[in-house]
Amino acid sequence: MSSHDTSYTVSDYLVQRLGEIGIEHAFGVPGDYTLDFLDRLVHSPIAWIGNCNELNAGYAADGYARLKGAGLAVITYAVGGFSILNAVAGAYAEHVPLVVISGAPAMARRQTQALVHHLAGDHDMQLEIYRKLTVDCALLAGPRTAPDEIDRVLTNCLSWKRPVYLELPMDVAQMPCRRPEPLSFQLDKVSDPLALDECLVEVARRLDEARNPAVLVGTEVSRFGIGPAALHLIERLELPYAMTVSAKGCLPEFHPQCLGVYQGALSQPETRAQIEESDCLIELGVWLTDWDTGLYTSPQAQRVFVRANLDQVRIGYHLYPGVQLEDFVRGLADQAKPRHFRDSHPMRPSAPDHSHLPQPSQPLSAARFYRRVETFLDDSMILVSDIGDVVCAVADMHIQEANNFLTQAYYMSIGYATPAALGVSLARPDKRPVVLAGDGAFQMTAQEVSTLLRQGCRPILFLVNNDGYLIERYLHEDQVYNDLQPWKYAELPHVFGDGALTFRVTTEGELEHALAAALAAPDSLVFIEACVGRDASEALKRIGATYQKNYRK
Amino acid sequence: MSSHDTSYTVSDYLVQRLGEIGIEHAFGVPGDYTLDFLDRLVHSPIAWIGNCNELNAGYAADGYARLKGAGLAVITYAVGGFSILNAVAGAYAEHVPLVVISGAPAMARRQTQALVHHLAGDHDMQLEIYRKLTVDCALLAGPRTAPDEIDRVLTNCLSWKRPVYLELPMDVAQMPCRRPEPLSFQLDKVSDPLALDECLVEVARRLDEARNPAVLVGTEVSRFGIGPAALHLIERLELPYAMTVSAKGCLPEFHPQCLGVYQGALSQPETRAQIEESDCLIELGVWLTDWDTGLYTSPQAQRVFVRANLDQVRIGYHLYPGVQLEDFVRGLADQAKPRHFRDSHPMRPSAPDHSHLPQPSQPLSAARFYRRVETFLDDSMILVSDIGDVVCAVADMHIQEANNFLTQAYYMSIGYATPAALGVSLARPDKRPVVLAGDGAFQMTAQEVSTLLRQGCRPILFLVNNDGYLIERYLHEDQVYNDLQPWKYAELPHVFGDGALTFRVTTEGELEHALAAALAAPDSLVFIEACVGRDASEALKRIGATYQKNYRK
Repeated sequence: MSSHDTSYTVSDYLVQRLGEIGIEHAFGVPGDYTLDFLDRLVHSPIAWIGNCNELNAGYAADGYARLKGAGLAVITYAVGGFSILNAVAGAYAEHVPLVVISGAPAMARRQTQALVHHLAGDHDMQLEIYRKLTVDCALLAGPRTAPDEIDRVLTNCLSWKRPVYLELPMDVAQMPCRRPEPLSFQLDKVSDPLALDECLVEVARRLDEARNPAVLVGTEVSRFGIGPAALHLIERLELPYAMTVSAKGCLPEFHPQCLGVYQGALSQPETRAQIEESDCLIELGVWLTDWDTGLYTSPQAQRVFVRANLDQVRIGYHLYPGVQLEDFVRGLADQAKPRHFRDSHPMRPSAPDHSHLPQPSQPLSAARFYRRVETFLDDSMILVSDIGDVVCAVADMHIQEANNFLTQAYYMSIGYATPAALGVSLARPDKRPVVLAGDGAFQMTAQEVSTLLRQGCRPILFLVNNDGYLIERYLHEDQVYNDLQPWKYAELPHVFGDGALTFRVTTEGELEHALAAALAAPDSLVFIEACVGRDASEALKRIGATYQKNYRK
Repeated sequence: MSSHDTSYTVSDYLVQRLGEIGIEHAFGVPGDYTLDFLDRLVHSPIAWIGNCNELNAGYAADGYARLKGAGLAVITYAVGGFSILNAVAGAYAEHVPLVVISGAPAMARRQTQALVHHLAGDHDMQLEIYRKLTVDCALLAGPRTAPDEIDRVLTNCLSWKRPVYLELPMDVAQMPCRRPEPLSFQLDKVSDPLALDECLVEVARRLDEARNPAVLVGTEVSRFGIGPAALHLIERLELPYAMTVSAKGCLPEFHPQCLGVYQGALSQPETRAQIEESDCLIELGVWLTDWDTGLYTSPQAQRVFVRANLDQVRIGYHLYPGVQLEDFVRGLADQAKPRHFRDSHPMRPSAPDHSHLPQPSQPLSAARFYRRVETFLDDSMILVSDIGDVVCAVADMHIQEANNFLTQAYYMSIGYATPAALGVSLARPDKRPVVLAGDGAFQMTAQEVSTLLRQGCRPILFLVNNDGYLIERYLHEDQVYNDLQPWKYAELPHVFGDGALTFRVTTEGELEHALAAALAAPDSLVFIEACVGRDASEALKRIGATYQKNYRK
């Protein structure tokens, strides 16, 4: 076809570009304003994954984006756009490259500000709100400007690893449009070479002088795909390293140099000592969030020697603006001299405790349940943690292989994990998602088990039934608002469809039986309700006292 | 206690004012930033109703507000605030007095813009977004300013019947605060008396000259509680009247002067003729939304003689600014001469067709199902319609008593009805909610059946299983995106708790059995899955052609 054929539309252009950035699945809910776009999408190589509601679609696309480099949600105007917004806010907070496409009324209706269904306020409201929670957005107002807008917005999504928003009026969706030029996204930000050199010389010298240097790996390493380069640096210089909770999963944890997860006063004591007593701590892409700093219990500025973030490096009290994190990591690996890790640092026992012996008739305790899940995990699984006691417990677990763990350790929206597991399933069909979700979190988004079944996904879903909002019971005086309606959780998957294996376990023996059945059915969705009463993980018990002392002030 | 006692806090002030505006129930989900406020709330006369998620809490509070004059949702920062936002947008669009209270990080954290959990962007993000979708909002930054802010924001909520937003930092929640002055909200807006007089004289004269005047009652009459005054006007002047879809329920429909629902080309033919052929149509509080105008098929400006809205009256092409709707309605009743309705207007058979005889073995058709629901309804029930084919079907139903019907006929967010029925149940315990929800809508918010059971509510929930997004199948070429995972719907309530009666009906006989059981169990939650295949209501069949012709342009 020539480039002037009228059958190629704005929708086709958009669908083609989405394919070029690696999108193979679209999550969402249809609505009349989006149908013309969806008609093109469902005839493209991108598979349509209908969700039960838009928030769940957003979480699924977020989980997908973390593993595939970009995720897509398609929703309708206002009722969809505002329903998914919390997932967009989460992706914005956590630097996840999520593309949101919203249908919209025809341009002629917009120009007259007609009172069309779904409208709240005026026709620009949704765009204005998305402008605040995305790194870039555009109204695709016509076929002449749409291609450049689409290219710019998608480039910014990939470049900043943050959500973007495209609003596509139903009439524009069908308008003829030029075909795309060959893809040439300019993604790389470049360091000033002289600043980078001076910075690297200084850091290398300080490292050389240090007695016990260490590396703390943070969120940006995870989100910007710098994990492999960081591991190369760490291995070449033989430095011990820890990760923040929100970076957990970006580097392997069975590694001999790994100190585990550092989280201020909430860390394991050995990890804490080795990070806080380092005389040359190199922080790579670390954010000082309340959770990553152990509720502000980590020593702050005075401790930090080198703090490298996306586009600057700080050494002590001076800054190198414009030095890019990835350039810094690669440059330092070339420049600095290897250390001898084994000589200066104690080893952490960097493997799960396989001495755990199930006691079949013993009621399930939280601590022993979580320890057993840890030993159950292997490299063929991706652990997806919801928020609540489970996100406390996972900090203590060893995840062997990189990229086998994800959660929302900063934005912390309960209900995230079950829909996110749908995204994980489709992004990495070779792996099996293992979900940990408390009962409170699960009730938020439970219907997405339906979509997991519908898509033939094979996650292992642990519903940790601890009878209410347990983390709130522990961190605050307990009140009725922490109670929940007690569902018959294990019966729920059967309502949504056929083929699930479900278990309700109250003893260690029953848990063993369920785990064995899960491994014996590698292609089934397995749902295990683990009843632990109101028992909390060891990690939450550590946190309770710190929260009372340091946070509620 | 003196007014200087330190045990009276900002939270107490807020709780007291909420009680004074008629709030008896608070919907929501707890989070750590809200717990200090909730500690006071749960010890007040306001009952805490925990929802499964925040969007559902918002819908419940919306349904409650429509019947009680104000509704309350309490949620936590960001993850809650953004999750509920679609319900707030709906309340904004539809003029529903919804109060949203969000917890927030302590002021000291805000001042340093600390990276606390749940933060997306910066600490003012949520407030800025709510400013766009509320009629008033405030950050309660300290106990000195909080009382006046609270009073102003709540006054604006009641005065404009639109959502408002209060952000309460966790530390401020506990701060000592002065006690409230006696409540003296200034709610009434007043007409300019000379403008009102001149306007009434003109309208009365035109009415007098008219051959076949009629009244069309719109949304504002419903939302601003002007129904009784409008009915007085209509009865005193003996005028025939119709309602728009979004005002349906605000006046009785078995009334001898009632022409039914007017919706342009989508109306019943007799209703349409009498409204469109009137030579003096008085529109009271009508909005020209796409749905209320029958997808823009109603004759526009040239037809309208008098259009009274909240704060202006238009007669032909001239305006009376500042004339208040309620003053106009009351004044016209006093001023104009009675007509003789029966002489000039044909009667509409204003009652459901009770000649409907069930044919026990006949498979359920959509048309006969909806007609049977209509005859099943009585004055002890409030019909709550979701969006989809059901909102098409209900336009044809006669609702005898005023205020026995609600839906979102403008914002049209699917999934609204099931959670809204929770609000209806608690606002009007003397009435039984009857919910009509399609399968697509129900999957959005299904978990709120759990809260209905938990609160001992006794709705009759009709899950109209028409196998997918039926309205989209009818209005557009059908595609895979309209398919849904087929749940075993009738088993779902039993997963959530005990005590529900559930039925899956495929024939008219089975439906009769279920309806009889529902009446025989007036205190139970009754769930009836009505399987109609992909059959559509008569109303949707009327709409299909109009949509293709008039809307997709």
